[in-house]
Amino acid sequence: MALLVVGSLAFDSIKTPHGKAERILGGSATYFSLAASYFTEVRVVGVVGEDFTAEHEAVMKVRGVDTRGIQRAKGKTFFWSGEYSENLNEAKTNVTELNVLEDFQPEIPRGYSDSEFLFLANIDPVLQSQVRRAMSSARFVGGDTMNFWIGGKPRELADTLKQIDVMLINDGEARMLAKDHSLPRAANKILAKGPKALVIKHGEYGATVFFREGAFGIGHHPFRAPALPIEEVKDPTGAGDSFAGGFMGYIASQDGLNREVFKRAMFYGGVMGSFAVECFGTERLRNLSRDEIDARFQIFRELTHLE
Amino acid sequence: MALLVVGSLAFDSIKTPHGKAERILGGSATYFSLAASYFTEVRVVGVVGEDFTAEHEAVMKVRGVDTRGIQRAKGKTFFWSGEYSENLNEAKTNVTELNVLEDFQPEIPRGYSDSEFLFLANIDPVLQSQVRRAMSSARFVGGDTMNFWIGGKPRELADTLKQIDVMLINDGEARMLAKDHSLPRAANKILAKGPKALVIKHGEYGATVFFREGAFGIGHHPFRAPALPIEEVKDPTGAGDSFAGGFMGYIASQDGLNREVFKRAMFYGGVMGSFAVECFGTERLRNLSRDEIDARFQIFRELTHLE
Repeated sequence: MALLVVGSLAFDSIKTPHGKAERILGGSATYFSLAASYFTEVRVVGVVGEDFTAEHEAVMKVRGVDTRGIQRAKGKTFFWSGEYSENLNEAKTNVTELNVLEDFQPEIPRGYSDSEFLFLANIDPVLQSQVRRAMSSARFVGGDTMNFWIGGKPRELADTLKQIDVMLINDGEARMLAKDHSLPRAANKILAKGPKALVIKHGEYGATVFFREGAFGIGHHPFRAPALPIEEVKDPTGAGDSFAGGFMGYIASQDGLNREVFKRAMFYGGVMGSFAVECFGTERLRNLSRDEIDARFQIFRELTHLE
Repeated sequence: MALLVVGSLAFDSIKTPHGKAERILGGSATYFSLAASYFTEVRVVGVVGEDFTAEHEAVMKVRGVDTRGIQRAKGKTFFWSGEYSENLNEAKTNVTELNVLEDFQPEIPRGYSDSEFLFLANIDPVLQSQVRRAMSSARFVGGDTMNFWIGGKPRELADTLKQIDVMLINDGEARMLAKDHSLPRAANKILAKGPKALVIKHGEYGATVFFREGAFGIGHHPFRAPALPIEEVKDPTGAGDSFAGGFMGYIASQDGLNREVFKRAMFYGGVMGSFAVECFGTERLRNLSRDEIDARFQIFRELTHLE
């Protein structure tokens, strides 16, 4: 079923211990769309500037992503430049140029309004709430955020939290949002703010999903999915968005939502994240096959399962 | 089958966000013995001072641990004082008094020499090698170490590494020992130094075992076991030693060593670590039942397994 994502489209300049890349295609909506495109029909809403060419758009189009929701504005596309030291879990931001993202007003194309699944990638929570309300028919909604909004727009973010089914954030964001260092305790505090489920991403250690009591009728025991031990993480940029894409894409591809679907979605999230970091930018996510994805799913299973 | 551990017996003063305790029974050999005692016959070698009473020894004896190898020396027992902030993964050491541990010369009681399993807990690598050589008949040997020895006695530690089958250390120690931030790469470098398997403990995120190619005839794919998301970690002291006790104890209780035994040992390690942190000191490890342990093993399975 159709999955709509609203988020950023960007150019990134990235430096890691394994190399660097200048002004390559990035952005949360881009990584998300590519990762989700292996599972379901994906529609994207975002804004780009005049430097965003047909060639850039084609990266998504060849993966079957519906790009009618990409708005073109005067000026330059959102630009981010950052670098990673040996500790690949943390990026140091050098430059953030919002550019056209600064005045972004998401418009949902008429043809998108029947999307049953919605993902609010990391953008201003005011816009997240706006899109959520415009897409009132969506029956399963995921969301992301970051320290910038947690610190800067706490009330607006609280409003968003009330309107989503599952939140996907990382360890640091969960601790900051709940003001609690203990992740299980932080999870419960965040679940009390609205979402039925919370996925906390632990970087190289995997991810844990916590459920509100009775959520989706599937009990409240947490579930933990691994990440792949990878010797050479080339570029961690977009790993979290790719996780979200695999996670939401798999859920959207299934007939119903039960505990087993949720668990498998966690695995597929980890799988897509593991592909994303193997190459710079979106490179690896552009030309995967479902067979490669399912083979890696099996590796994740063998990594964690007893007989 | 009998499992011999050589390590420290100690008194600890501990402060955590959930309380504090003064001069309670601790030490790597103590936590290890108690955790392993639920699986197999355990024998302990270590040194204590005059302040170590029959009551302290009884904590191990009531669990069936053979304490004939506890040597008594003039002076005081090894003392450690430390505290944990909200980040319970890291202790801040306030006081370390080696006391009788300073001149410790491990002596293996005659009745211990048929021990088929041996664990060299965190003590001077010179002593670890000495014990390893004295126990040449041991057919499976595990070991631990810490930053103090990695930095201070690298050659001696290299000698120990050549003589053990499996090393159990944490993330920081693995990175320091291999001089590499990437854990999978660090693992391969450490395996090249001698051990057939390396267990890297990730604290609240679980643990991963890496194998040397062809080790134990069970392939070289890593395996990852979870830790339990616990809302209230009362006292993390001894979690790693308890992991090692569960891990080695389970292996010693099995007839042969195959991949499945190794995997289950990783789970039992996590299970015993999860119990250890629920109370201050060794409290929780003193009066468990095998039923409680196996029930938690099931929780670990449900936390990680797809259908």
